[in-house]
Formats: sequence, C-alpha cells, structure tokens
Amino acid sequence: MGYQIITISRQFGSGGRTIGREVAAKLGIPCYDHEIIDRLEEESGFARDYIADKGEYASHGSIFANGIASGKNNLHSASNQDYLWVLQKKILTDIAKKGPCVIVGRCADYILDKDFDCLRVFIHASMEKRAHRIVEVYGARKDSPKKRLKKKDRQRKAYYKYYTETQWGVAKNYHIALDSGELGIDKCVDIIAAVYNHE
Amino acid sequence: MGYQIITISRQFGSGGRTIGREVAAKLGIPCYDHEIIDRLEEESGFARDYIADKGEYASHGSIFANGIASGKNNLHSASNQDYLWVLQKKILTDIAKKGPCVIVGRCADYILDKDFDCLRVFIHASMEKRAHRIVEVYGARKDSPKKRLKKKDRQRKAYYKYYTETQWGVAKNYHIALDSGELGIDKCVDIIAAVYNHE
Repeated sequence: MGYQIITISRQFGSGGRTIGREVAAKLGIPCYDHEIIDRLEEESGFARDYIADKGEYASHGSIFANGIASGKNNLHSASNQDYLWVLQKKILTDIAKKGPCVIVGRCADYILDKDFDCLRVFIHASMEKRAHRIVEVYGARKDSPKKRLKKKDRQRKAYYKYYTETQWGVAKNYHIALDSGELGIDKCVDIIAAVYNHE
Repeated sequence: MGYQIITISRQFGSGGRTIGREVAAKLGIPCYDHEIIDRLEEESGFARDYIADKGEYASHGSIFANGIASGKNNLHSASNQDYLWVLQKKILTDIAKKGPCVIVGRCADYILDKDFDCLRVFIHASMEKRAHRIVEVYGARKDSPKKRLKKKDRQRKAYYKYYTETQWGVAKNYHIALDSGELGIDKCVDIIAAVYNHE
C-alpha cells in the first residue's frame, strides 16, 4: 500500500518538528505544523498563543481527571478546547484531502487514520537531550528545562488520552518510533523517508 | 558511539525472533535466543518448557500483583522464577562479554544496558497480524489465537515490570520500535542493520 500522509507525534524538545520538515523536503511534499495554527487562528478568532497551547496540551481540570482516568465519556461541559478539537479535525481532514504531506502533532495520527493511509511516527529522546535542545531552541526560562519538559509531557499525554482514548507514546500505536537523541536527526529522516518510499 | 549489542524485545507473534536472526546474519554476528534457554537448562537443572515459560512470563500471583502495582520492592518470597532471573542475568552478561551479538527477549535490554552499548529495539504488530502468524508458526490450539496473545502480552508485561521496574512496550524505553506487520520483516531488518552499521 502507498501512504498518503506521514503523521509525526513527538515529545516536546525531541526535534520532531525539524524531522517532519526535513522528511517533507526530502520527499518533495508539504509539511504542516504552524500552518495548522494559522488556520485555527483564522477560523476560530482565538489568540495564537491560546490555540498553540490549547490545541495539544491539557489545561483544565476535567481533561486531567478524565484524560487519565476514563477518556472523554465523562465530558460534562463543552469548552473552548472542545471547540478547537472539532475545528482541528475539520482542518486536518481538509489538508489531508489535498494530497501527500507530513503533519506534525495535533493528534493527526488518530484523527486521520480512519480515512487515510497514514504512516504513524513517534519521535522521542532522553530528558537530558531534550533539556539541552529546548534551551538551545527556545532559550532559558524561569522554570528549569526538566520541569518544563515534565509538565509538557504530562499535559500532552493527558490531552491525547482525553480526546483519543488511546495512549500517547505507547509503541504499538505507531508504525515507527525513534529516539532522535540517540540516532540523530538525519538518521531519523532517512528511516522515515525510506519507509514512505518503500511502500 | 559503536553498539556492542542489539537487544530485541518483542510482542509474541510479531516475528521479533526472525528479525533478530536475520539482522545477525546480515551483520555477520551471532544471535542468541534458544541458546540462552539451553544454558539456563544446563545450569539450573529445570525442565526446558518450565524455563521457557518462567524466564519471560509472569506466572505466580505476587508477580502479577507487584508487577502491575509497585515493582519488586514488595517481593516477599524467593522463588524458582527469582532464581532463574539471577541466573539469566549472569548468562546474558557472559554472552555479551564475548563480543557483538543480537539477543532476543529475556529482558536483555534492561540487564545489559548499564554495562554495554546496546541498541534497544522493540518489535510489535497488530493483533490480527500476530494471530495469523502464531497459527502459521505454532499451529492452532484450544484457545483462540487472540486469547493466547492477550494472555502472553499480559504475562510478559507483568514479568518485565516486576523485574525491571520499567514499562515494557513504551516507546521511550527503546531506540527503535517498529510495527513488523505494517513494515514487513525485511524492512525491519534493513532499518536495524543500517542503524547498527551507521554508528
């Protein structure tokens, strides 16, 4: 079978976005990442930072409680986050219909897998390697890099569980999972592009 | 860095053993799998089937209770399984000291990672693909293939958690995790061998 879409889920600071861009460049297909936030901003009217945060990270209590415990069945109130989830599904589906592409984050693996042939990729790296990378890429903050990473991991995992009812970061949910800190960005790009081309 | 050892953890029925053998053949290094059971049999005096089962699968109540809940700290009785675990550690270390090789299963990723440069691989596949494979390889049994697989998955996960205090099948614990049912055996072999040679 030929893949239509490459979805890249990633730990914060693992270089997953860079890998997505480079795979797309190598394959001569578009990569969508910030462009999804652009469209969410345009169509929702919400502020950009609010969207970037709310579109991938658990933030309110019910997501944490239900996300960890029992999925979205306990959902008892519509929220901006739920509205963004619905809009995100629509935008991702529109993008996927345009043709082969790479999509980074936004639960695209879950959203698109039913209707499109997706190569589902997960990128991760050790806490040490990610801590080094986020300071290099985003600069130092008040909180330590490790504290920032632990918070992001926790929020992303809870968000994913809440909206998809599956577990983020469990190997069996992805066709390929790679440690970018160990293998290096270039090797990860080579592996993903080779699998995509092979099929 | 150059890797000394390739460790292959795998879901039952995913073809991880075949992949290990083929990677080793491609790299011209030995692959240890049944040989570990041979040595355990020789050194422990236990029956072969007993070793094959007790060396990777949780079987008694305390492993299930503690393995899922809180690791080995609650261990309250030595058992044959604990004895085999200690012997297995010794045998795997002896093997690793001999030189580059592939080791399939037996928690080698956890046991050897502290003292050797290990490329840690996890192989998995969908329930459907694995059900098909185990009937093909091991034949039909009284229990359905899916029931057999679910039991094996549960036992292996509990065994791993109990003795290693880490989670089996979580992407971040492996350098490479591959869906052999999706990618095919040959592609998995190519990826692992390329990463090993690349370093």
